[in-house]
Amino acid sequence: MDIRIGMIGYQFMGKAHSHAYRDIPFFFESKAKPVLKALCGRNIEAVKEAADRMGWESVESDWRELIKRDDIDVIDIVTPNHTHAEIAIAAAEAGKHIITEKPLALTVEEAKQMKEAVEKHNVIHMVCHNYRFVPAIQYTKKLIDEGKLGKIFHFRANYLQDFIIDPGFPLIWRLKKEVSGSGALGDIAAHSIDLGRYLVGEMDEVVAMSQTFIKERPLGEMSGGLSASASSEEMGEVTVDDAVAFLVRFNSGTFGTFEASRFATGNRNRNTIEINGEKGAIRWDMEQMNNLEIYLTDDQEGMQGFRNVNCTEEVHPYAGAYWPAGHIIGYEHTFIHLLYEFCEAIVNNRQAKPDFHDGYQNQLILKAIEQSAETKKWIDIPKA
Amino acid sequence: MDIRIGMIGYQFMGKAHSHAYRDIPFFFESKAKPVLKALCGRNIEAVKEAADRMGWESVESDWRELIKRDDIDVIDIVTPNHTHAEIAIAAAEAGKHIITEKPLALTVEEAKQMKEAVEKHNVIHMVCHNYRFVPAIQYTKKLIDEGKLGKIFHFRANYLQDFIIDPGFPLIWRLKKEVSGSGALGDIAAHSIDLGRYLVGEMDEVVAMSQTFIKERPLGEMSGGLSASASSEEMGEVTVDDAVAFLVRFNSGTFGTFEASRFATGNRNRNTIEINGEKGAIRWDMEQMNNLEIYLTDDQEGMQGFRNVNCTEEVHPYAGAYWPAGHIIGYEHTFIHLLYEFCEAIVNNRQAKPDFHDGYQNQLILKAIEQSAETKKWIDIPKA
Amino acid sequence: MDIRIGMIGYQFMGKAHSHAYRDIPFFFESKAKPVLKALCGRNIEAVKEAADRMGWESVESDWRELIKRDDIDVIDIVTPNHTHAEIAIAAAEAGKHIITEKPLALTVEEAKQMKEAVEKHNVIHMVCHNYRFVPAIQYTKKLIDEGKLGKIFHFRANYLQDFIIDPGFPLIWRLKKEVSGSGALGDIAAHSIDLGRYLVGEMDEVVAMSQTFIKERPLGEMSGGLSASASSEEMGEVTVDDAVAFLVRFNSGTFGTFEASRFATGNRNRNTIEINGEKGAIRWDMEQMNNLEIYLTDDQEGMQGFRNVNCTEEVHPYAGAYWPAGHIIGYEHTFIHLLYEFCEAIVNNRQAKPDFHDGYQNQLILKAIEQSAETKKWIDIPKA
Amino acid sequence: MDIRIGMIGYQFMGKAHSHAYRDIPFFFESKAKPVLKALCGRNIEAVKEAADRMGWESVESDWRELIKRDDIDVIDIVTPNHTHAEIAIAAAEAGKHIITEKPLALTVEEAKQMKEAVEKHNVIHMVCHNYRFVPAIQYTKKLIDEGKLGKIFHFRANYLQDFIIDPGFPLIWRLKKEVSGSGALGDIAAHSIDLGRYLVGEMDEVVAMSQTFIKERPLGEMSGGLSASASSEEMGEVTVDDAVAFLVRFNSGTFGTFEASRFATGNRNRNTIEINGEKGAIRWDMEQMNNLEIYLTDDQEGMQGFRNVNCTEEVHPYAGAYWPAGHIIGYEHTFIHLLYEFCEAIVNNRQAKPDFHDGYQNQLILKAIEQSAETKKWIDIPKA
Repeated sequence: MDIRIGMIGYQFMGKAHSHAYRDIPFFFESKAKPVLKALCGRNIEAVKEAADRMGWESVESDWRELIKRDDIDVIDIVTPNHTHAEIAIAAAEAGKHIITEKPLALTVEEAKQMKEAVEKHNVIHMVCHNYRFVPAIQYTKKLIDEGKLGKIFHFRANYLQDFIIDPGFPLIWRLKKEVSGSGALGDIAAHSIDLGRYLVGEMDEVVAMSQTFIKERPLGEMSGGLSASASSEEMGEVTVDDAVAFLVRFNSGTFGTFEASRFATGNRNRNTIEINGEKGAIRWDMEQMNNLEIYLTDDQEGMQGFRNVNCTEEVHPYAGAYWPAGHIIGYEHTFIHLLYEFCEAIVNNRQAKPDFHDGYQNQLILKAIEQSAETKKWIDIPKA
Repeated sequence: MDIRIGMIGYQFMGKAHSHAYRDIPFFFESKAKPVLKALCGRNIEAVKEAADRMGWESVESDWRELIKRDDIDVIDIVTPNHTHAEIAIAAAEAGKHIITEKPLALTVEEAKQMKEAVEKHNVIHMVCHNYRFVPAIQYTKKLIDEGKLGKIFHFRANYLQDFIIDPGFPLIWRLKKEVSGSGALGDIAAHSIDLGRYLVGEMDEVVAMSQTFIKERPLGEMSGGLSASASSEEMGEVTVDDAVAFLVRFNSGTFGTFEASRFATGNRNRNTIEINGEKGAIRWDMEQMNNLEIYLTDDQEGMQGFRNVNCTEEVHPYAGAYWPAGHIIGYEHTFIHLLYEFCEAIVNNRQAKPDFHDGYQNQLILKAIEQSAETKKWIDIPKA
Repeated sequence: MDIRIGMIGYQFMGKAHSHAYRDIPFFFESKAKPVLKALCGRNIEAVKEAADRMGWESVESDWRELIKRDDIDVIDIVTPNHTHAEIAIAAAEAGKHIITEKPLALTVEEAKQMKEAVEKHNVIHMVCHNYRFVPAIQYTKKLIDEGKLGKIFHFRANYLQDFIIDPGFPLIWRLKKEVSGSGALGDIAAHSIDLGRYLVGEMDEVVAMSQTFIKERPLGEMSGGLSASASSEEMGEVTVDDAVAFLVRFNSGTFGTFEASRFATGNRNRNTIEINGEKGAIRWDMEQMNNLEIYLTDDQEGMQGFRNVNCTEEVHPYAGAYWPAGHIIGYEHTFIHLLYEFCEAIVNNRQAKPDFHDGYQNQLILKAIEQSAETKKWIDIPKA
Repeated sequence: MDIRIGMIGYQFMGKAHSHAYRDIPFFFESKAKPVLKALCGRNIEAVKEAADRMGWESVESDWRELIKRDDIDVIDIVTPNHTHAEIAIAAAEAGKHIITEKPLALTVEEAKQMKEAVEKHNVIHMVCHNYRFVPAIQYTKKLIDEGKLGKIFHFRANYLQDFIIDPGFPLIWRLKKEVSGSGALGDIAAHSIDLGRYLVGEMDEVVAMSQTFIKERPLGEMSGGLSASASSEEMGEVTVDDAVAFLVRFNSGTFGTFEASRFATGNRNRNTIEINGEKGAIRWDMEQMNNLEIYLTDDQEGMQGFRNVNCTEEVHPYAGAYWPAGHIIGYEHTFIHLLYEFCEAIVNNRQAKPDFHDGYQNQLILKAIEQSAETKKWIDIPKA
């Protein structure tokens, strides 16, 4: 069954999604066959170039036109955060299945409307918290669900980057609140929050601290990935957080600690979690994403220690689709797995996770964190 | 010059101090020569046995008698926390130099009185934040002081243990507020706080969360080190925190995150810090205490990464006293360095650091953290 | 320019190559466009299924027919080792460019004929030593060529696997000399040898030891990747080495030590090299393939240590084609890079490396090692 | 029971031994009480200074006088290798128990005479292969003896240093064959050989390669530890190996690979072993000596990986004498354990291991390796 994709946006995430769609049928058996139908962006020349390189059949310069097309089943939204809501709602109204990059929206209100729209129009919807789909993370979920770690005492997540410590790094869209919603918070802490919810459950309350180390930057543009160059000597105000930390009480009684920063010198993309439970513990670092450190309290005395497990064996989720044990996969595979699940959901007419409900709940948490950082108070986290 | 020590207490810390005094003249050249004059404890038989094993010349069963002795220059206090104040104040009044285990006291009020007493009586005083004296930490201090890391953005400290996750682990003194003051907070977070103050400076405000995972435990006793066994089926209430986390704004503008737990399954004694600055970063883990990971932003592009430095070279503080490069030292050496500095201070009639001022400031921070955890509010940290 | 591929074989390596051809134009700009023209194998039903899954346009059951086809520019040989020579020579005679899996051939004689055939018929030829194409390895080559490591004292390579320690693991083709040529030697040590030649240069002499720990195994088949299951209770003789180690004198004066084993319990695919030079050193492990540990002797005293460099920055070879720094790639990308270079060579009508000359030289070394292991003598290594 | 030590030599090893004797009664309960009776060396002023610093009761300038003394039970020999035999034989004749640094002697002939002398005179004898006494190594021995690793396939040992890569490093005694016997071979490979014999058993045959990278050096002296400075512009010939590698067949069928070098840039003292057995595997690195990586084949599928065990728990040999779990020990503790065993042997009138038999066998292996490197042949290893 062809699943005809129309994607809006074609930068870093557009590349990741395009590649993943192409790889799904290569690695996974499925009735679903993603078709790269149309790529959409405002700069039609750039879109054409990207479509050609990445294998899209056609292009559009106006997303409204894309949504109108009959030959599109799925709208994939990889544009900056402030555009997600309008596009997604329109797509839902047009009966398209929708996948969108995270965070779901710019605000809680938008997120709520998006969630209501997809539910009302009964389309399949998903939000791209791709780190859920690392085999080591999926395996951790399995261990927790099977009770292998017992009751969870601690969830500890750091997401550390350092790409903007240079004061000459320009004021890209990720540093403007009106476009991105927030800084390290919505960009990277949102991933840690999703992992926390996925692995440990809902959060009840939070207290947070945030900081903007460099308050003004030269104007400039992204030049691909997370690189950028200043295009002007004119300065603009940074309106988002450079770093955020928060303490969380999970509903399960788990003690949660989180930190995210773009000023963590020496860390390119250090996305780590640690979980300590009554029967075991795990540690994981995205920069060594194939490895999962596992500790079990019932290991024999004298031989207790974190095991360094290379999650590339058939028993590890998704790993059997690739190479023999010990032959690692990388960042891009998280999107293959996520979009595979999305396509499976469509072809089987069932909902996939994480969905707009998750995206909305994530947004409620992001808002509570922002409120806490502003008001310097503990904030109760509403349930979506 | 003989420095005649009278030590009160003879368990885990008593052993660490005794060993250190014996080793100082072996490894370090100094005019000071510590003499293990008298060991004091209430159970005179046990004290005698300990004194014999550890090389103390005489014993006392009453610390007041010890303090009266003319042949004692230093009172070393390694008893549980609730006894520090009374002993230290009496020792100061008797004109003895004083070294005490951390935390300085049970309460801020006690700590203040202790500080005032040693200042009034003009004795040398020190508090045993031994982790300052790891060569890798001293070297980090040097790097920071020389500006090698630049302005510090982040200070991140975890102190993770797991020795009480078993509900059958008994209600030892460390779990009773009236004896220990607090739990993971005063026992281990206090060390992280000291490292933060030492390396980054004073703290302005804090918000904290704490938790007691197991609220009742069987009565029982320490059996040495951090081991213990239940002596009864009777249960008692745990009145201290099992875990604590806090967010700190340093006066320097540094963004501080701390966590300490005795429920961090899989971690025996994982005391870590990470510092991210504009010119460099470090990472350190006490379980690999000889190693310091150092990152420098001006390393050549393409060759940037954390260097794993084995701090066993002559250029590393204290390391030259020991073995050739690559031959590691251990936990006990932190006490050798600390007590060496204490003896040097006495023989040179100058003050050593960390002193009772530091202990008092640490106590003020501990109190602010407790207040924050109770009231769920940010707390301004008073300056000693 | 279309480069029309005809591939013979479709198992583990066939999958890796197919995937790589598909990904090349996605990630790399080039005039070359690989076209998956025809897939060939004896079991036509299986070939059809594979071709469909992997995106090949047509199928063949007889490689001779494939070679005859006018619409094929390249013959890609991923069949067991004993078939390489006949196919490659025929393909060369037909004027096809040729890429073949390693080791080049079953014997030195075959390798020589293959080399002569491609030279005579003036086609582009390459052999799949894919580990050369890890960014960290290419970057190491660059460091060496620029003199950053100085004169090389040591080259140390281990290639450790453990997939056959179970005596019940069957007698697959990799364990039969007549099909595979040798065991751990040709299968994995051949890779280490190629890395040694690539990074340090030619080898002058060698002494070796080899061992077959389990001499008889049940008959059975590969079931994909490196998995297999016994199909019979009948036993057959293992005729290749399970482990091999050898000491090498490089022409450069470098001291070389090598070990390869399929009995290195706990190691799924631990392919490591270490190089020590007068100005620096590197360490690398394929299971953490994105990381390169770099040591420089002129780093400041006190801050000398191996740097852990994540080779995912634009400055690292090939890495700029993918994701932002800190977002890792995996095993399959080595084939993308290798086949990209092959296509570039074709489109630019120049030779690529490693070529059949390298494959032949590698084979001469493999033979010398086998001779040494048999005769228990040092063997001079002939130059191709 | 007092065990009165007379030690000859007072440099690096003299310091390690002196410290260990002092620490034994502090950490270990025993009837034996080592007494630092007399320190001996030719430069009496230097000896006096050393004796004073390290706590020796008296001094001697002539080892023959020392041996004559009635108040000496043990002769401890920490002088350069070429002096061991004469001293040890005289000490045995005088009825002294003897402990000597490794390698036992300069030559096999000397070693044999030493062994015969101690046996004839029925004294306790030991040779200082201190790495046996790391808790992680002792624990490995226990695992092997209990069959936890099963039949051993591989023993892999590297001992890598880099302290002489600078051509300006002087021609110290360790670089002169007539004083040291050999270079990296006798100094550090001898330790790896001892670990191999201890853990896996006797060796049957060996083939070796050795190299001297820098053939001439300025004359000069040790200045403590492994540091040294040139004292002259005059050059002298280096007459020992800078690096050695050898392949070994153990009697058990284990496949042994060894390398030792003082030119392994970036490695201060990287003494590693790896053992792969049919039921499990271990990895160990002296620079992280408290850690033992343990792999067990019967761990549950999906959770197989090397466990990182911190061997600081009561169940680990010797560890219970020190600090709570997770509080590490260092290099010097290996000597405490070794000399503790020596004293226990004396007080219980039984032989300790490793003894002169082990030292002699080690010497036979060293000689076989030298012969193999010279003759470029496999050499059968005689049994002592």
